[in-house]
Amino acid sequence: MSHKSFHPHHRILMGPGPSNVNPRVLTALSHATIGHLDPQFIELMDSIKTLLQDTFKTENEATFVLSGPGSLGMEACLVNMIEPGDKVIVCTGGYFANRMIQIVEKIGGIAVPVKENWGRAIDPQKLEDTLKENKDAKIAAFVHAETSTGALSNIKELSKIAHAHNCMVVADVVTSLGAAEVQVDEWQLDAVYSCSQKGLACVAGMAPVSFSEKAVDHIKSRKIPVQSWFNDLNLLTGYWSGQKRSYHHTAPSNQYYGLHEALLILKEEGIENAWRRHKENSAKLILRLKDEFNLEPIVPAGERIPHLLAIKVPEGIDEAQVRSDLLTKHNLEIGAGLGELAGKVWRIGLMGYNSNEKMIDYFISALKKELHKH
Amino acid sequence: MSHKSFHPHHRILMGPGPSNVNPRVLTALSHATIGHLDPQFIELMDSIKTLLQDTFKTENEATFVLSGPGSLGMEACLVNMIEPGDKVIVCTGGYFANRMIQIVEKIGGIAVPVKENWGRAIDPQKLEDTLKENKDAKIAAFVHAETSTGALSNIKELSKIAHAHNCMVVADVVTSLGAAEVQVDEWQLDAVYSCSQKGLACVAGMAPVSFSEKAVDHIKSRKIPVQSWFNDLNLLTGYWSGQKRSYHHTAPSNQYYGLHEALLILKEEGIENAWRRHKENSAKLILRLKDEFNLEPIVPAGERIPHLLAIKVPEGIDEAQVRSDLLTKHNLEIGAGLGELAGKVWRIGLMGYNSNEKMIDYFISALKKELHKH
Repeated sequence: MSHKSFHPHHRILMGPGPSNVNPRVLTALSHATIGHLDPQFIELMDSIKTLLQDTFKTENEATFVLSGPGSLGMEACLVNMIEPGDKVIVCTGGYFANRMIQIVEKIGGIAVPVKENWGRAIDPQKLEDTLKENKDAKIAAFVHAETSTGALSNIKELSKIAHAHNCMVVADVVTSLGAAEVQVDEWQLDAVYSCSQKGLACVAGMAPVSFSEKAVDHIKSRKIPVQSWFNDLNLLTGYWSGQKRSYHHTAPSNQYYGLHEALLILKEEGIENAWRRHKENSAKLILRLKDEFNLEPIVPAGERIPHLLAIKVPEGIDEAQVRSDLLTKHNLEIGAGLGELAGKVWRIGLMGYNSNEKMIDYFISALKKELHKH
Repeated sequence: MSHKSFHPHHRILMGPGPSNVNPRVLTALSHATIGHLDPQFIELMDSIKTLLQDTFKTENEATFVLSGPGSLGMEACLVNMIEPGDKVIVCTGGYFANRMIQIVEKIGGIAVPVKENWGRAIDPQKLEDTLKENKDAKIAAFVHAETSTGALSNIKELSKIAHAHNCMVVADVVTSLGAAEVQVDEWQLDAVYSCSQKGLACVAGMAPVSFSEKAVDHIKSRKIPVQSWFNDLNLLTGYWSGQKRSYHHTAPSNQYYGLHEALLILKEEGIENAWRRHKENSAKLILRLKDEFNLEPIVPAGERIPHLLAIKVPEGIDEAQVRSDLLTKHNLEIGAGLGELAGKVWRIGLMGYNSNEKMIDYFISALKKELHKH
C-alpha cells in the first residue's frame, strides 16, 4: 500500500452528522498544542464548562465534555447511573434507543423497553403504563431526537412522568443540542449527553455531558463502583472542577479548541435564534421536497426533529445508487436508513453551519438531477 | 464569565506528553470534515491501519485506532481480554501500572500485583515467581515505558515468561511506540495500546491498539459479553475491517487526518531512525544535565526510557515554583512527579518532533536561568 498526505474532498454534509464545520472551528483546531494541565488550558476548560451550561440550559456543576464521541457519552451516562441488577425503563422507537438497551444489558442492568413504532415520538402513556407495572424501576432513559427515524419525543413530558414514579432520568440529546430546544434544568434531566458534530457545528469526537446534583449524589453513593475507569464521574470531576485539578487523562487539547470556538459561535448567534433558524430552514426544506418531488418525512408533523428528516425513498428508486451519485457527482452526503429503516429512507440533515437556504438550494438541485434520471 | 476566541501560548512541551506537533499535522487537522462512512474516509482508515501495523511491527489484522486517548486504550484492552473472576498478573512499579490494577478490579478481575520499586524496570524473576504461585492466572499485564518513573522494562523477556506460563499478554506501549523499539509480533504481545501524542508526535486523543489472532479468538469466545459497548472489539472490527463497513460510532475524522499525517512523517523518517534519534538526543541531554547541574535520572542506566527522564529535584529547590517559572517565563512545560514521586522529581520528555538538539539547548538554558536564582 502506498501512502501519501490525505486531502479530503470538500463535501456538503447533509446526512445525520457530521455536518460541515464553520471555518473558524477548523482554524481553531490547528492552533499550537498546549498541555492538559497548563493553567491556560484549565481556563479554556472553565470557559467550555460555562458555555456548555448555557447550551444545556443548566446550572449543573457537573457539566463538562468527555474526550470521545457521543456514543461514549451514552455509555458514560448509563455506566455511572446504573448498577448491576438495576431495573431501567428504556423508551425505544429507533436504533439509538436500542443501543441504550444493549449498553444497559452489558452493564448488568435489567432493561425494560417501552416500545414505540419507528418514526413516531414516544407515547407518554406507554411510559406511564410501564412505570406502573415496574415500581422497582430506578432509571428511565429516552432519546430526545431519534437520529435513525427523525422523530422528536416530548422529553419534558416523559421526564415529568418518570420523576412522578421516582425514577431518575437519562436523556440522549445527541441530535437536539444546539439545534432544538433543550432545557436540562427545567425538564429535570438528571444525566444527559450529546455530541459535538451536529447542532454544535463542531468536528466529531467529543461528548458534552451534564449531571444533576441528585445524579452526582446517586453516583457517589453507589454500592458497586462504576465499572468503567475512563468514564467514572467521581474521577472525571477531579479534573474538571475545584481549585487544584487532578490528572485524569491527556485531554485532546486541539479538539477542545474547536469545541470552544463552536460554542462561542453559538453564543454569538444566541441559542434561541439557532433553534429558530433550524426550525425555519427545515420548514422550507420540507415544502421544497413536497413541491418538487412529492416527498415527505415518514414522521407525522408535530413529531419531527426540525433539522433531521427521514424521507421515504420513492418507489422504484435504487436508493444506494442515488446516495452514491450524490456523493461522487455532487460531493453531497446524505444518510442511509439504519436498522428497521435500512434501504427504506434517506436521512437529510440541515444542522448547525449548514442550516441555511443555500444548502437547501444545493440539495434540491442535486437531487433533481439524480432523480430525474430514473 | 466573558468568553472570547482562544489563542494558546506557543509552549515548548518537554513534559511527559503531549509534546509539540509537526506543523504538517496541525495543517492536516484543519482540512474539511468528511463523513465517517465516506468511501474516501474508509480509504484513510485502511491507510492508518497499515501504517500502524508498520509502527507496531505487527501483521495483526485487528490493528486500528480508538477514538479516545491512551487511557481509553488501556481500558479497552483490559475490558476485552478479561472476564469477571479472571486472575490477572499486573507488574507494577509506577502510577500507570497501578491504574491497570484499578481497571482490572473495576472490571471484576482479580489483580495480582508483581511489585517493583518505583524507578526500576520490572525484575523478570519476580514475574516468574508470581506466575508459579498463580497457576490459574490467564493474563499478564505490564507497562513498557512507565511514564511516571522513566523506567523501561524488558517486556520481550516478561512476555516470554508469561507465555511459558500459559498467560496472554496485555502491554502498555503508550510512551514507547514510535520513540523506542516495540515489536508486537516478535515479542508476542497479545493486546497492546498506545497514544497519539508522544512518540507518534500527533495531537492527543487517539489510542492505537493491536490484538493478536489469539487475543481476537479469546475475545470472541468469552462466556460473559464485554461489559463495554464502546470498546467491544467484536463491534469495532465491523467498522474497521471487511468489504462492507458497519457503523459503530462517528469517528472524529479531523483527528484521524492528523494521525495519518503523523504516521506518514514517521514512515518517511523510518521508524528505526526515529528510535535511534530518540536514543542519541537523550544521551546528549543526560550528559548536559550531569555537566551543567549535576542532575541525574532516578532510574539506573540500562533501565531508562530514552526519551523521558525523571530527574531528582535538587535539595532546597521549590520544584513547583521552578516548573511554574519555566512555564510562564520561558513558555517551557516540564512534568511534575506523580503518585509516590509527586514533589520529588521533574519529568523531562524529548519526544517525537521535539527530540532534537535545539530543544536540548533551549531547555538547558532556561533551566540554568531558573536554577541559578536559588
